[in-house]
Amino acid sequence: MNNFTCAVLVDDQQVISLGHGSGGKQTSQLIKQIFLPAFGNDKLNMLHDGVLLDIPSSQIVFTTDSYVIQPIFFPGGDIGKLAVTGTVNDLAMCGAKPLYLSCSFIIEEGFLQSHLQRIVNAMQAEAEANGVQIVAGDTKVIERHMGKNIFINTTGIGISLSKEPINPLQIKPNDCIILSGDIGRHGVAVMAERENLTFSSPLISDCASLFPIVRALLGEGIRVHCLRDITRGGLATALVELSESSDMDFSILEEAIAIDTAVDSVCEILGLDPLYVANEGRFVAFVPEDQAESALKIIRQFPEGYLANAIGQVHPKARSPRAIIKNALGIERNLYRLMGDQLPRIC
Amino acid sequence: MNNFTCAVLVDDQQVISLGHGSGGKQTSQLIKQIFLPAFGNDKLNMLHDGVLLDIPSSQIVFTTDSYVIQPIFFPGGDIGKLAVTGTVNDLAMCGAKPLYLSCSFIIEEGFLQSHLQRIVNAMQAEAEANGVQIVAGDTKVIERHMGKNIFINTTGIGISLSKEPINPLQIKPNDCIILSGDIGRHGVAVMAERENLTFSSPLISDCASLFPIVRALLGEGIRVHCLRDITRGGLATALVELSESSDMDFSILEEAIAIDTAVDSVCEILGLDPLYVANEGRFVAFVPEDQAESALKIIRQFPEGYLANAIGQVHPKARSPRAIIKNALGIERNLYRLMGDQLPRIC
Repeated sequence: MNNFTCAVLVDDQQVISLGHGSGGKQTSQLIKQIFLPAFGNDKLNMLHDGVLLDIPSSQIVFTTDSYVIQPIFFPGGDIGKLAVTGTVNDLAMCGAKPLYLSCSFIIEEGFLQSHLQRIVNAMQAEAEANGVQIVAGDTKVIERHMGKNIFINTTGIGISLSKEPINPLQIKPNDCIILSGDIGRHGVAVMAERENLTFSSPLISDCASLFPIVRALLGEGIRVHCLRDITRGGLATALVELSESSDMDFSILEEAIAIDTAVDSVCEILGLDPLYVANEGRFVAFVPEDQAESALKIIRQFPEGYLANAIGQVHPKARSPRAIIKNALGIERNLYRLMGDQLPRIC
Repeated sequence: MNNFTCAVLVDDQQVISLGHGSGGKQTSQLIKQIFLPAFGNDKLNMLHDGVLLDIPSSQIVFTTDSYVIQPIFFPGGDIGKLAVTGTVNDLAMCGAKPLYLSCSFIIEEGFLQSHLQRIVNAMQAEAEANGVQIVAGDTKVIERHMGKNIFINTTGIGISLSKEPINPLQIKPNDCIILSGDIGRHGVAVMAERENLTFSSPLISDCASLFPIVRALLGEGIRVHCLRDITRGGLATALVELSESSDMDFSILEEAIAIDTAVDSVCEILGLDPLYVANEGRFVAFVPEDQAESALKIIRQFPEGYLANAIGQVHPKARSPRAIIKNALGIERNLYRLMGDQLPRIC
C-alpha cells in the first residue's frame, strides 16, 4: 500500500494539489495550462533542464530574491509584480539592463489556481514592461497549512550599462545623496491591507520598476557612484549599510525626506518610524555634487520620481562610519539598522 | 503600538526569528555569522544588490530549482548538498560546466541555527567539490508552524563545454539510451527516514553531482545528443517527456535497468513502482550507437556510474511518440508520466 497517495481535493474552485509538484502529469498540465501561455518564449518552451542564453556581453550582473509577502494581493500590486520588479530593481541598482529572469514557485496545497493565474499574468506584464524574458522555472508544492501561501524566487541576469563600476566602494566625499521619492508607502499599504484598515483616500504601495529611471540617468551621462533600493529595513537601514560599506559618514536632513501625510499619520498611530518602513519603488543615488541638479531633473520627470530630493551629503568618516540625521530643530542623531522586525513578510 | 513586534523566542538552542528576515540588524548578523564564513568570496563579500561576473563566454547556461525536501537530513545527504548538486546537475545535463550559484533561503521561525549551519557547510563543501562559487544570496523568514521547514532556491550559471547543442531535439533514430546507474535509491532512502523504517544494511540516497561524469564524456569526445537527470517522476517520467520533446519512440528493456534488491523489496512492500521513484544522482544519456560502448566504459569508471547500462534504443515514431518498456517475458507496455504524487517533497 502506498502511504503517500495524495489527497483528492474536492472544491468548487480548482486548487493546487501535491501532485502539481510531483514532476509528473499534473506538473506538466500546470506548465501547459498556466505557465507557458503566460511566459512562453522560445527559450522557456524547450522545457529542458537549463536554457542556453547568448548574452551580448561577457560582463553580466546576477542577483536573487525570494518573495514571501502576505497578503499576496495588496493596493498597488501583488506578489507577482513584486517578484519581477524587486529583482529587476536589484539589477538596475548595479547599473544593469535586466535581460533574463528565472522564476521558481513554492506553492501550498489548496492554493487557488485562479490566484496563481493572476500572479503569473502580473509577472508577465511586468516582465514585458521591462523588456525581460522569464526563461527558466520550477514548481514545488508543500503540504496544506492555511492554503494561502505562495513563495516566489526570481533570479536575474542583466548586463552593465555603465563602464564605470556602480557600487558602495565608489561613494566619494562630497557626493550628493538623492532620494528618489517619498518613503513608507509599501510597508504602510501592506500593513493596512493586512489589518483591514480603511482610509479616506487609498494608500497605494510604491511597488514599481526603477530601471527606466536608472537607464535615463546613465543615458544622460550622470556619473552615478552608487545606487541602492530602500526595501526591507527602510531608508535608515540602507544608509547605515552604505556608510559602513563605503567607510564614509553621511549627513542627512530629515526635512528633505518626503513623506505622504497619510503615511505619516498611520506611522504615528501605530508607532512605526517611517525611516524604517519598507519601500519597493524608491532608491538612493550617490552622485557628484556638480551633477546633483541634473540628476534630480531627470528623476523628477518620472511619475515615481516627482518627489525626488537631495537629502544629504557624504563626508570622510570621523571615527567609525556613521549615518547622522538632523531634524528641523537642528538636533542630530545616529541612524541604526532596523532592530527586530516591524513588519514581517513585507516583501 | 506596534502590532508586529516579533516574539522573543526563549530556547536552550539558538533559533531563527522573524527578525532574521527583516533586512536589519539580525539579518546582518546572520550573514556575518553563518553565511559569509562558509560561502565568503570576493564577489559575495561585496553584499551589494547584485554581483558583477566576468564570464569567459557569451554563451551561458541558466537554470533554477527550489528544494523543499522533508526530512532535511537523510541517509546520503541533506537539503544543502541536494540544493547544490541538483542545480549543478541541471547545468551538467545541458553539457555545461557550472560556474556560479545564487542561493536563497526561506526559513521558518524557530528553525535551529545549528541546523542552518550544517546545511550551509554542506552547500559550501559541495560547491567547492564542483568548482562553483555561491555569489548571491537572500534570506526570508516565515512565521512558525512546526519550526522545521527550510526551503532553498539555487539558480545556476554555467558555460557550455560542447560546441554541439545537447538537448532533446538532438535525439536521433538508433541512438543508444544509457542509464548511468541503479534507480530508486533517493526516493526509498528519504521515505525510509521519514517513516522510521530500518533495514539490515542502510539504504543511502544516490544524491551526487553528475558533472564529473559529463565532463569526462565530453572530454573524451563522446558525441552526446541529450542528457537528462531522472529526478521527480523517476526514470519513466523522464523517458516519456523526452520521447515527446524529441518526437521519437523509445524501446526500453526492463531487465537492463539496475535496481538494488533492498530498493526493490521496499518498493514491493509499499506498492511503489521503482520506475517512478525519484533519483538525485542518475541520468539517461542519448549517444550514437557506435559510441555507446565507449560512453559506458567512461561512465562505469565513476563510483556513481559502475552500474551504468544500455537500456534501450531510439526509433522514428510510429504514430504519436511513445516510450515502450519490454519485460523479461517479452511483454510490452507504454510508459506514462507519474500520476498524482507517490512521495511528496522528495527534493
